[in-house]
Amino acid sequence: MEIPKAVKIVEVGPRDGLQNETIILNTNDKLRLVSSLIDSGVSNIEVTSFVHPKLVPQLADAEILLKNILCIKGINYSALVPNLKGFERALNTNLGEITVFISASESHNRNNVNRSISESLENLKAVCKKAKESRIKVRGEISVSFGCPFEGKVPLKSVITIAKNLIEMSCYEIVLADTIGLANPEQVYSIFKLFKEKWKNLSFAAHFHDTNKMALANVVAAIAAGVSVFDSSIGGLGGCPFAPGATGNVATENLVYMMDKMNIDTGIDIRKLLKSVKMVEKLFKRNIELIPELKKIEES
Amino acid sequence: MEIPKAVKIVEVGPRDGLQNETIILNTNDKLRLVSSLIDSGVSNIEVTSFVHPKLVPQLADAEILLKNILCIKGINYSALVPNLKGFERALNTNLGEITVFISASESHNRNNVNRSISESLENLKAVCKKAKESRIKVRGEISVSFGCPFEGKVPLKSVITIAKNLIEMSCYEIVLADTIGLANPEQVYSIFKLFKEKWKNLSFAAHFHDTNKMALANVVAAIAAGVSVFDSSIGGLGGCPFAPGATGNVATENLVYMMDKMNIDTGIDIRKLLKSVKMVEKLFKRNIELIPELKKIEES
Repeated sequence: MEIPKAVKIVEVGPRDGLQNETIILNTNDKLRLVSSLIDSGVSNIEVTSFVHPKLVPQLADAEILLKNILCIKGINYSALVPNLKGFERALNTNLGEITVFISASESHNRNNVNRSISESLENLKAVCKKAKESRIKVRGEISVSFGCPFEGKVPLKSVITIAKNLIEMSCYEIVLADTIGLANPEQVYSIFKLFKEKWKNLSFAAHFHDTNKMALANVVAAIAAGVSVFDSSIGGLGGCPFAPGATGNVATENLVYMMDKMNIDTGIDIRKLLKSVKMVEKLFKRNIELIPELKKIEES
Repeated sequence: MEIPKAVKIVEVGPRDGLQNETIILNTNDKLRLVSSLIDSGVSNIEVTSFVHPKLVPQLADAEILLKNILCIKGINYSALVPNLKGFERALNTNLGEITVFISASESHNRNNVNRSISESLENLKAVCKKAKESRIKVRGEISVSFGCPFEGKVPLKSVITIAKNLIEMSCYEIVLADTIGLANPEQVYSIFKLFKEKWKNLSFAAHFHDTNKMALANVVAAIAAGVSVFDSSIGGLGGCPFAPGATGNVATENLVYMMDKMNIDTGIDIRKLLKSVKMVEKLFKRNIELIPELKKIEES
């Protein structure tokens, strides 16, 4: 196991977190949360999604949010784009990066975007072509890569085929997402190892949910396989409205704390990050139980 | 990372778990718990401790417990022995294995057994000599190997020196214990890797507490370093009465579940093990929140 000197952390709380909350934040509160994250050194943020506002009303203010977001240098904002229509909306904003997504299982894809995988691929191909023309970077996320709430095991072959397609569409980074938290470290290690060997020069990211308390263990397994990009969500917010049983993403504060202890640079100041956790607590009227070592930092 | 085919799990709930609970179980209930664990396939159990009954009244019935314990073939019972006096008590039972322990930091050792490390080593040397004469196997545990509640960082040199001493005393297995849950995966990986290289033919075990939610991540890091023996505690019971801030051991059910998913054999039937968790809930009048995948197994 080679421990990397640094990892890239992509904060997905404002998107993956917020879309699964019953409380709908107003745009101002979202901007405050994003600002607070940036204050702590977070530099990659998935801020919203261009899915249909009726499906995810929590993120219906995508355009207004992006219009108002501070264009601080060095911050990579991105947003989820489900289809061509969503892309047209994204194109009307300042976004330099989008994330397209597709599920590794037919039934989850159908539930998520009401399309077959091949229909999704066709549509995303068009999105990626247009994105390239507009010099917008595309991240490709493969949902339920490690297990599906409807089908259980997901054939590795499907994940590979979809990845191949996304790579051909010029996605600069492929995110393997454990959308509902079913992944185990052996699986994480072997899949990422295979992918890193197959596509040597491509960036792969891991997106874990902590449903079964294995998210940090999976992060370690991914590191062992050479992964150095991780999605996470402030306060462990998150889930998937179309994936029964899914709970929050791995909490950014726990991920950053672990990286700090492992001497892996994240660029994020854990002490400042705890202010964002406090903000999440207030915004969602929820108690977030910090691990004892983070409590100590907060109280010191 | 090489995934082992099988791991040895040492159940320490009846000792490390019970010693930190305010409810004192009667001997009968302890025997029922141990029986239930054995029913699920648990075959290595640290059942009690020969520390002074005044210090740990929860385990004052060590002799009676061991006298009544079923001598099922293939089950390795062991008990904690702090000193020569404790060893004399252990000698009066049927025990074929004991665990001696010593802390890697002076202040924790002082708090734990009221001795300096070198005094402890002298005493344990006498214990190990007598154990060898009586053909009793000795496991050597080094407490606070990854961090001390009083001193913070523990010099690696101390851990190495103590390990060297314990190995010279013929301990067949060295347990590096993260007594209060401060270890991180990088540290776990590098220390175990060093030890496995230094002492190629010796068995090393990892003992993690889940204080900072990193126990399973540390297990993965230990596996990456070649470790295949893990202590755990049913229901996540545990702590250390002389280590402020310590919480429970990694829960056996979570460890076994993760190993199952990783295709690593533990010899333990997870479905049956959940009955022991239920028993712990009843005995300690406590709700133990199972991870969703274990809940599914319990309800199926």
